[in-house]
Amino acid sequence: MKKTGKTFIIKDDVIIRDTYTIVGNKEGQGPLKNKFDMVIDDDLWGEDSWEKCELKMQRTAVENLKNKNNLINDNIDLLISGDLLNQITSSSFAARDLELPYIGVYGACSTMTLTMGLGAMLIDGGFAENIICVTSSHFCSAERQYRLPLEMGGQRHMSAQWTVTGSAAIWLSNSGKGPKIKHVTFGKIVDLGVKDANNMGAAMAPAAYDSLNQHLQDTGVDYDLIVTGDLGTIGKGIVNKMFNEENKSIESKYDDCGTIIFDIEKQDVHAGGSGCGCSAAVFGSFLYKKLLNNEIKKLLFTSTGALHSPTANLQGESIPGIAHCLGIEV
Amino acid sequence: MKKTGKTFIIKDDVIIRDTYTIVGNKEGQGPLKNKFDMVIDDDLWGEDSWEKCELKMQRTAVENLKNKNNLINDNIDLLISGDLLNQITSSSFAARDLELPYIGVYGACSTMTLTMGLGAMLIDGGFAENIICVTSSHFCSAERQYRLPLEMGGQRHMSAQWTVTGSAAIWLSNSGKGPKIKHVTFGKIVDLGVKDANNMGAAMAPAAYDSLNQHLQDTGVDYDLIVTGDLGTIGKGIVNKMFNEENKSIESKYDDCGTIIFDIEKQDVHAGGSGCGCSAAVFGSFLYKKLLNNEIKKLLFTSTGALHSPTANLQGESIPGIAHCLGIEV
Repeated sequence: MKKTGKTFIIKDDVIIRDTYTIVGNKEGQGPLKNKFDMVIDDDLWGEDSWEKCELKMQRTAVENLKNKNNLINDNIDLLISGDLLNQITSSSFAARDLELPYIGVYGACSTMTLTMGLGAMLIDGGFAENIICVTSSHFCSAERQYRLPLEMGGQRHMSAQWTVTGSAAIWLSNSGKGPKIKHVTFGKIVDLGVKDANNMGAAMAPAAYDSLNQHLQDTGVDYDLIVTGDLGTIGKGIVNKMFNEENKSIESKYDDCGTIIFDIEKQDVHAGGSGCGCSAAVFGSFLYKKLLNNEIKKLLFTSTGALHSPTANLQGESIPGIAHCLGIEV
Repeated sequence: MKKTGKTFIIKDDVIIRDTYTIVGNKEGQGPLKNKFDMVIDDDLWGEDSWEKCELKMQRTAVENLKNKNNLINDNIDLLISGDLLNQITSSSFAARDLELPYIGVYGACSTMTLTMGLGAMLIDGGFAENIICVTSSHFCSAERQYRLPLEMGGQRHMSAQWTVTGSAAIWLSNSGKGPKIKHVTFGKIVDLGVKDANNMGAAMAPAAYDSLNQHLQDTGVDYDLIVTGDLGTIGKGIVNKMFNEENKSIESKYDDCGTIIFDIEKQDVHAGGSGCGCSAAVFGSFLYKKLLNNEIKKLLFTSTGALHSPTANLQGESIPGIAHCLGIEV
């Protein structure tokens, strides 16, 4: 079996051939502003709802990725996608327009590595030559669904994170040049009882620790950089603390997409960025370019998700966390 | 590549080793009443919400499947699951208790074949020896979320289907005896513009036709029985009509889980059953036993999904349909 411990081994070449990122205006003013392929001007992008804007981001990210690389549908075996909205409608409606065989997944903010991990395994398994993975999130559609009407102008908690408006499409292939996915660890759910939906970082951090620890133990790879999805400042601190308590500090080479995408001090995002689009956009722009330029050669990329729902929250449930890891090497 | 046309070929043995089904009271009074492993007495099963009852069905189906076969977590490589609820909480909360590496998918009522197709490919790809696939739906949690409060006592449309209260867990393995998954066709989205959320059968039928046609054309297998997920009486009629118009009638060997699970005349279900639990419970009980008993040797099993959301519906969108096919042979 292509497995070591709980981690799956990608034996044949699965290459991350190219990426395409689209982000919102606020993200386009942050520290990564020059790294994205496209920055949109406002929250609607000419559509009549935030939800339609979000699916347009997904669809356009895939279309532009295809056009940039002269890819046609006949050469793409599968589209794997997911998002935060109820019934993952951004993904399904984008898939309708893209006319590709479609696998929809739900992993909340862990979706990017979930799609890429599955894609890598299906290519390595001999089923596909080219797969496109895509995720998205949108600040306004997420706030409306998970929290409060934006029109209310409610004050945000200091521990809350800012859902990234953004989408990234990733092209995985069994041929060509680029960084390779070598290992995949799908996490199990970890839930230490956090019930505060305004503190997702704390809810997800134990799952991130569990999956990272499992992956590092299984593979023994000495990564140049370890990045989690969107734990933000609070969750990132907890992960560091958990590793430190086991005398296995990763602090010197660890960062979090939720703290990379925004200028935490200046952009009023409180605990940092979040959403399926957060780790997607940071990977598709900043991290992928670092791999292409040989600035890093071994990246442990881990998206993290909070798998609650507003209904479950109102019914008194705590927030189940999950994290899926990809070991990527040049 | 393990692919013919748009259909994936499962080369090595992927065996459906066992199943476990749990259904609600109404389903337990239908034509398949003696085929299910467990029938629950009421809509709550001792829980304090319908949602908690639904996740208990999923968790119990997996636990009982494991116990029946002396399976322990160390021997199970992955849990793949999904359901109808926002953020697929039945699946995620069940996965929390089951403590297995977890892949969450969303395909609405197409979820059962989506999980089993993915599971078969990951086993054939050499990544796993044993995978458990599970889905669920619950009439009351679905009505509350998608339609109207049950307490209102609203009258149901004659074209509406009755969401099945039920769950099925399926054990896929690379060893042992049982029916084998030989082919997998993941559908693309087909949307002919149906906007009536009370007529899902009509919305999903064109997608079912598209995937069935693709699968039959790709594989050339002469199936003994072709079964769709939950098109109900209306959708089933449309599929028959679409095949007849192409002079490729499948009528003599075609049936639909939504019309099999209930006595349409006597049980007041209008157009038939639906929900992730519908094709799951019918496959896990009735169809699986037919395969085990050699009553049928070649089954084309196709779950169908309507990938809309109440929000998208209110925003004027039509309903995107999808269907995923499994070719199963003894």
